[in-house]
Amino acid sequence: MNDIQQQEVQKAVEAAVEGINADLGILWIIIAAILVFFMQAGFTLVETGFTRSKNAGNIIMKNFMDLAIGSLMFWVVGYSIMYGGDTILGGFMRDPSDLAFFNKEDWHNLFFQTVFCATAATIVSGAIAGRTKFSTYLIFSAILTTIIYPISGSWLWPFDDKAWLNNLGFIDFAGSTIVHAVGGFAGLVAAKLVGPRIGKYADGKVNVVQGHNLVLGALGVFILWLGWFGFNGGSQLAFGGSNSVAVGSVIINTNLAAALGAITALFFTWIKYGKPDISMTLNGALAGLVGITAGCGNVNAWGALAIGLISGIVVVLSIEFIDKKLKIDDPVGAISVHGVCGFLGTVLVGVFAIPGDEFAGGLLYGGGFKQLGVQTLGSLSMIGWAVLASFIVLFILKKTIGLRVSEKEEIDGLDVHEHGVNVYGRD
Amino acid sequence: MNDIQQQEVQKAVEAAVEGINADLGILWIIIAAILVFFMQAGFTLVETGFTRSKNAGNIIMKNFMDLAIGSLMFWVVGYSIMYGGDTILGGFMRDPSDLAFFNKEDWHNLFFQTVFCATAATIVSGAIAGRTKFSTYLIFSAILTTIIYPISGSWLWPFDDKAWLNNLGFIDFAGSTIVHAVGGFAGLVAAKLVGPRIGKYADGKVNVVQGHNLVLGALGVFILWLGWFGFNGGSQLAFGGSNSVAVGSVIINTNLAAALGAITALFFTWIKYGKPDISMTLNGALAGLVGITAGCGNVNAWGALAIGLISGIVVVLSIEFIDKKLKIDDPVGAISVHGVCGFLGTVLVGVFAIPGDEFAGGLLYGGGFKQLGVQTLGSLSMIGWAVLASFIVLFILKKTIGLRVSEKEEIDGLDVHEHGVNVYGRD
Amino acid sequence: MNDIQQQEVQKAVEAAVEGINADLGILWIIIAAILVFFMQAGFTLVETGFTRSKNAGNIIMKNFMDLAIGSLMFWVVGYSIMYGGDTILGGFMRDPSDLAFFNKEDWHNLFFQTVFCATAATIVSGAIAGRTKFSTYLIFSAILTTIIYPISGSWLWPFDDKAWLNNLGFIDFAGSTIVHAVGGFAGLVAAKLVGPRIGKYADGKVNVVQGHNLVLGALGVFILWLGWFGFNGGSQLAFGGSNSVAVGSVIINTNLAAALGAITALFFTWIKYGKPDISMTLNGALAGLVGITAGCGNVNAWGALAIGLISGIVVVLSIEFIDKKLKIDDPVGAISVHGVCGFLGTVLVGVFAIPGDEFAGGLLYGGGFKQLGVQTLGSLSMIGWAVLASFIVLFILKKTIGLRVSEKEEIDGLDVHEHGVNVYGRD
Repeated sequence: MNDIQQQEVQKAVEAAVEGINADLGILWIIIAAILVFFMQAGFTLVETGFTRSKNAGNIIMKNFMDLAIGSLMFWVVGYSIMYGGDTILGGFMRDPSDLAFFNKEDWHNLFFQTVFCATAATIVSGAIAGRTKFSTYLIFSAILTTIIYPISGSWLWPFDDKAWLNNLGFIDFAGSTIVHAVGGFAGLVAAKLVGPRIGKYADGKVNVVQGHNLVLGALGVFILWLGWFGFNGGSQLAFGGSNSVAVGSVIINTNLAAALGAITALFFTWIKYGKPDISMTLNGALAGLVGITAGCGNVNAWGALAIGLISGIVVVLSIEFIDKKLKIDDPVGAISVHGVCGFLGTVLVGVFAIPGDEFAGGLLYGGGFKQLGVQTLGSLSMIGWAVLASFIVLFILKKTIGLRVSEKEEIDGLDVHEHGVNVYGRD
Repeated sequence: MNDIQQQEVQKAVEAAVEGINADLGILWIIIAAILVFFMQAGFTLVETGFTRSKNAGNIIMKNFMDLAIGSLMFWVVGYSIMYGGDTILGGFMRDPSDLAFFNKEDWHNLFFQTVFCATAATIVSGAIAGRTKFSTYLIFSAILTTIIYPISGSWLWPFDDKAWLNNLGFIDFAGSTIVHAVGGFAGLVAAKLVGPRIGKYADGKVNVVQGHNLVLGALGVFILWLGWFGFNGGSQLAFGGSNSVAVGSVIINTNLAAALGAITALFFTWIKYGKPDISMTLNGALAGLVGITAGCGNVNAWGALAIGLISGIVVVLSIEFIDKKLKIDDPVGAISVHGVCGFLGTVLVGVFAIPGDEFAGGLLYGGGFKQLGVQTLGSLSMIGWAVLASFIVLFILKKTIGLRVSEKEEIDGLDVHEHGVNVYGRD
Repeated sequence: MNDIQQQEVQKAVEAAVEGINADLGILWIIIAAILVFFMQAGFTLVETGFTRSKNAGNIIMKNFMDLAIGSLMFWVVGYSIMYGGDTILGGFMRDPSDLAFFNKEDWHNLFFQTVFCATAATIVSGAIAGRTKFSTYLIFSAILTTIIYPISGSWLWPFDDKAWLNNLGFIDFAGSTIVHAVGGFAGLVAAKLVGPRIGKYADGKVNVVQGHNLVLGALGVFILWLGWFGFNGGSQLAFGGSNSVAVGSVIINTNLAAALGAITALFFTWIKYGKPDISMTLNGALAGLVGITAGCGNVNAWGALAIGLISGIVVVLSIEFIDKKLKIDDPVGAISVHGVCGFLGTVLVGVFAIPGDEFAGGLLYGGGFKQLGVQTLGSLSMIGWAVLASFIVLFILKKTIGLRVSEKEEIDGLDVHEHGVNVYGRD
């Protein structure tokens, strides 16, 4: 066979391989999306287990309905705002009339992005558990999944030259900021505006409101850790060849950061309080997971371990600071886990990123302060947007239909008043 | 390279791609089957959580054992009756002496079909919870998985010209009828024959028997929704090329129908009862999932939304009708969710199906009443078979070993008498 | 096209197929590893549900932390000891300075092996639940995952000619011995050294300590059964072509053995005690799963059924023997399920193995006693190592920091004293 013939054969083979790699990518993205979907159950269990039994049904419903509403709204509007072809308003968002959701060829990606969007929404519910009106939550959740999340997401994740943070070289591989910090800081605004639960800050003291079932909470954390392999691994958005190796690397980085987040929080609380704290250790693993989400595709294992370690300490300090100094009542620590560690993890990419084809590398790898600056700018821009938009929406809701249930409803429990049920019905 | 040479190269490449697509299909079917397997845990949690704690162990055992017994019986007999090569009795079933289960090349499919069969069996247990003899249930479950389910399944799913409903153009992509309506109507017969729980219809009133743990019930629904991506997506029975796109489409249709089923049931009960009902909303999602199962490969997203919306309303009305008018005691709403919405979803394919190569399309898409007629005929045939066969088996069991536990056993709880245990043992 | 040209084309195509099969293998191994990861949640639920509520938080933490610590230690040391290039100490282990963990190309396998290692570690926690010091457990768990498990694992699983049990033809496909018997017999040593719970063998009687939530226990068993499809199926370590068929076969064997293990234990306890026992039936499924793990790639379905049946009987007898005769307090039956059935399943490969390219076949298939002898030798070698190493480590720990909590701590519950929390906090 002569050279030309060999080239033609090679071309035919390569075209076939390319097609199959596309299929491998679709298969992996679908499976990863199913894993991320499962995280909704994980969030539900964590939030339910870490709070009081009288509100368990309400928490279930919030988590269940933000998934349902998010699935609908992101499909019909959000996806086009985030991934549509043309930008509008000077690059602020994509054109929703683009109806990107009509292209079935892309529905594996739509599914993947839908469950990401639902994750951002569900983070908020934890921060405002136990005192928020159900109807108000549904409206806010619909707006978050329809507009707020897709707009900041559009600044990076279409990964084209119309996404301004992509042009700057901002790295947020799987969404430490886009998903977690946006959800976490929206939760901060909501928790601040809705105010603390009755009795939380009574008589000048900071009272602990004990969760009612840490076993369910722990099961939730196992499920979240599990789902995160899809969350981060799937964000490679491809499989086959070098992408397969990259996915393996992302998964090990994810697992190491989670492990060290848990180990660090365990020993940090053991030293600090004299006993290894269960809730904090579980949150330590989640903090490591949130922290590594931005950089899992751009750091090596040492970077992953460093991010896990830092996140495991910061989450403990942040939960205490928000609870005791800021006196913002966040029943499950969602603001610290998702907001603070999401921001932190994004910024730390500027320290630990390995130089690549498109990126100069982080502070420790010869890239200077450039990436660090871009990471900070990108993350703060998105957080700023989330805070501003959430504030406007929630402020309007507060002044109209109200954010809070009545005092009697809160004391009796939201389940009885909002849903007419006791979820632990005795026989 | 000349044309003939190019064709030969192309042929070699295409043969390789075909082989790899077969592997992709096997991989996807195995993963989908594992997801469907998980639905057994989902059913267990829903049934346990929606019923009383004194019967929780019994419900666990029923769900666990119908999986175990179904795995064995479907392998050894059922699979051959459903997928064997030759038909017997004029096309009524396949020849069980065909021993289709011996072909290892096909075991990924055997695994997928086994967990489908176990799903049909497990639906029955919910409808007769709290008063049925354990031994009787095991016998019925064995007969259902060995004979009843495989026979009606054989009328379509071998997808060959010996399957009479396949020849008619009946569409039941993933089993709204074959799995869910067959299980649901077998449950109806069983619930009718076994009678209501003591106290359910006492003093001329319809009493509510509160479930004992809606948190577990909700976790079960999350797991079912999750597993359904394998249930419906895996029913494409292939992956690669256009099949990959089809799987993505099936999954989005499934998710949208579930979402709108939940949303619809939420607002429908909110308006009807004044409060958004938790159990009904969870059942609304399941109703949407059951409803879309027949048509998820043949409708577009608008059709999926319509089916989800209709299912979400019908399930609420049906649960009330069966409970209050028919006075059939179905503790978890299995008859309405799986039976009624399974039938409904199958029929609605005749309204919303998009025209395809082999199908003329539903009523709304220019196909006239033909598909609607075929869907009704096919679904009623299978349901009729399930009702008839279940009645004969259960009637014989009633007249011999009996269907019900004694009054004392029922009042004390099945766990203590049937299994000698309190599953919530205190320390 | 002439013959030489055709060969060249074929070669180009085959090279491409080989590359894609490698990708398919990586994808399957990653997914299988994620399923095995989920087994950690399954173990946690089984151990928590089968024991007393006052220790639930401690059990959660043990399971959570052996995963975290195992993930770290196996990555940094254990993996190199098990899979490094060169052997040291005369083939006793691999050279840990080999730093096998640096090779990212291999990280899908590292991930798979990490979750296997964590499984072995977590088995121990069940056997010593309710009276063991948390700090001691963490140290032992770290040593098990760093040294004990990797050393015996290195004798077979690198599958090269430096692995002495591989040279002998020892078969332990997915680790009945390497994972389960090693974990189970380490648990035996630990349970013996730590002694029984207070009140377990009081007044000359063998008292039953009732578990506090069998619903969670059952959910755990469902999750373990689910994860086992990854555990055994993934151990094919490849996908595509004949490997796809092999994976399907492994999964059906696994499912049949689990099913028959459950069915056998159900009827065996029904006959023996007069009632079908819930805990024993659940353990029967696990026993079948542990039993089939060694041979799932080398037996046919009849062999799988036989192994499931034998395991389902033996586990019941073994739990009684260890509890009542040996008076070793194993709260969840971990020693019998994982240790005894792990050994049993490994030995039974010598009876039921089908002859293959490299193996002469078991006793029933014309291979004589050779394979039986190799299986017994291999399994006993690994178990002997696990017993010896565990004894040395635990004996030192006993004489230094101690194994047990104080009597008061045990009676009050480990949660309050070790972690300062009641996991079922009331509102």
